Amino acid sequence: MFENKQNRTELSSLGEFGLIHHIKQSVKLTQPGSLKGIGDDAAVIDNGPGRTVVTTDMLIEGVHFDLSFTPLKHLGYKAVVVNISDICAMNALPKQIVCGLAMSNRFSLEAVEELMEGINLACERYGVDLVGGDTCSTPGGLAISITAIGHAMEEDLVYRDQSAVNDLICVTGDLGAAYMGLQLLNREKKIFLENPSVQPDLQGFDYPLERQLKPEARLDIIQRFKTWYVKPTAMIDISDGLASDLMHLCKGSNTGCQIYEEKLPIDHLTRELGIELGLDPTVAALNGGEDYELLFTLPLSEFEKIKDRAEISIIGHMTDASFGYRFIDKQQNVHELKAQGWDAFRA
Amino acid sequence: MFENKQNRTELSSLGEFGLIHHIKQSVKLTQPGSLKGIGDDAAVIDNGPGRTVVTTDMLIEGVHFDLSFTPLKHLGYKAVVVNISDICAMNALPKQIVCGLAMSNRFSLEAVEELMEGINLACERYGVDLVGGDTCSTPGGLAISITAIGHAMEEDLVYRDQSAVNDLICVTGDLGAAYMGLQLLNREKKIFLENPSVQPDLQGFDYPLERQLKPEARLDIIQRFKTWYVKPTAMIDISDGLASDLMHLCKGSNTGCQIYEEKLPIDHLTRELGIELGLDPTVAALNGGEDYELLFTLPLSEFEKIKDRAEISIIGHMTDASFGYRFIDKQQNVHELKAQGWDAFRA
Repeated sequence: MFENKQNRTELSSLGEFGLIHHIKQSVKLTQPGSLKGIGDDAAVIDNGPGRTVVTTDMLIEGVHFDLSFTPLKHLGYKAVVVNISDICAMNALPKQIVCGLAMSNRFSLEAVEELMEGINLACERYGVDLVGGDTCSTPGGLAISITAIGHAMEEDLVYRDQSAVNDLICVTGDLGAAYMGLQLLNREKKIFLENPSVQPDLQGFDYPLERQLKPEARLDIIQRFKTWYVKPTAMIDISDGLASDLMHLCKGSNTGCQIYEEKLPIDHLTRELGIELGLDPTVAALNGGEDYELLFTLPLSEFEKIKDRAEISIIGHMTDASFGYRFIDKQQNVHELKAQGWDAFRA
Repeated sequence: MFENKQNRTELSSLGEFGLIHHIKQSVKLTQPGSLKGIGDDAAVIDNGPGRTVVTTDMLIEGVHFDLSFTPLKHLGYKAVVVNISDICAMNALPKQIVCGLAMSNRFSLEAVEELMEGINLACERYGVDLVGGDTCSTPGGLAISITAIGHAMEEDLVYRDQSAVNDLICVTGDLGAAYMGLQLLNREKKIFLENPSVQPDLQGFDYPLERQLKPEARLDIIQRFKTWYVKPTAMIDISDGLASDLMHLCKGSNTGCQIYEEKLPIDHLTRELGIELGLDPTVAALNGGEDYELLFTLPLSEFEKIKDRAEISIIGHMTDASFGYRFIDKQQNVHELKAQGWDAFRA
């Protein structure tokens, strides 16, 4: 945290083509469908019969990340993962990415190498190829734009509009940790800025910190769906927060929903950190966002197939649209669910 | 130029989802392969058998464009065109784009609408669908990231590595105009900033201004290649400048080249503006960049097929790599061709 690098090679000493050549050296293609990678006007792909799935996400310095506590390697990793998560949310398999990097001359070649290390690590971890991109300069900050390409057979694709009344609402993993991790990082940054001799105290909270800095996409779940013979009726990844993303599924499928506080999967370290920071873990789970877990619905008839899966929690059910969006707290009080997740233009 | 808009709706009053909904209303899908557009975690595409071609480009405020003289509608149009140009340079047909927009709250909804108008106009002009994207805020400027997806049969694709010695070097349209247009805009901006009562004098130079502000991609040429039964041995679009881009073809194909000043296609308005600005049109043609014309090579045996095409100029031929990169001026002096085109990290 707050460290400085010793070695520094100016990007201007390589130039754009030198930088692209340098990046190309670190990239390996492993997907048989990646026919032509970096080095022409465009990449060439043949992922076989079926459907191509495409998503894009930008990460902007000062909005999506704070380099004073975000290692560039983690940032590169996260930039890939958030896109892979979107591909998984279609029940598709990620295959390729293209990556736009825009950065000011305050970044050195070593900084780009660190970022690329994270991007390449995520590609390796998820079996995805970096097949192209664009590098350019900015007057100030760093911006990363990644477009991910996935593949699925038509019959496997899951959209947001096929949920039905009484469908089970399911979520993978646990929620709220990434948000708690961010609050801890922000607190320690504030303390450090006020008194640089105080070293940040992040001990014991590895899990929420990792969830914030180096999230994972649930490709494992997409792969398991096949072996479980499960196909969700609707699915989305939780990036804006459970409440906001669940309401997207409800609007897409024209349903209402009812979920239960006591069913929300929250890790014990998220709860402990909530106590330390004076933040309600339930609020973090509902509205924190950046969990990159999968939220999906299944017909009641599929209950037996998932009821004993440790990685899946059933948190409620879909209702008739006229019931609205309901949240039942631990005292059985009924609240209206509100989307207070991250909103780019209100945050 | 330098105008202010009267109406202003804050982006924060819509929020991100409101903005996406608003953008979605203005978008029409026309490609049969665009199965699912904006509104889910990812777009779904089926462009049929063959190859998928993918390219991405970012445009950054203060680096790639200056909003004091670039209308947002033209900017949106150009952002799409530069990507379509890359797809064309593979001898592929553009089909879909996804678009990331990052902008600060100094931009209003009306500004986004203007930008989208240009994006949609380019999509319509080139028969391309906007199928997805991402909107987010920035601490300062505007950044546009577009990824374009194209389609070609394997046998039609043209790379950079199949040029042979003696191949004809051909270029479409004319060169240097976009660079001259930019110099004129920069001059008038400087005059305006020094004395705001002086109105910019841009009269008579519509063509170079349009080439800078609203370039076109040569999709028409790609379509004509089919009817002419012509397939280039190598191809690239001229974005960095003829010299730099020709050297990419030579390096890709392991050849040298020889081109002639007297053969360079330069519009008479580019020459006139060169005289007015005191700039050499040949230098603009060689190193100006942003022409978005196609540079390609053809075997000598194809000469008859293209010799009388008004839209194609033969400017030289490929040579053995040991000859290097040669430029023959009008006085028959031999120069070494140097890539002095636009370089992101040296500009």
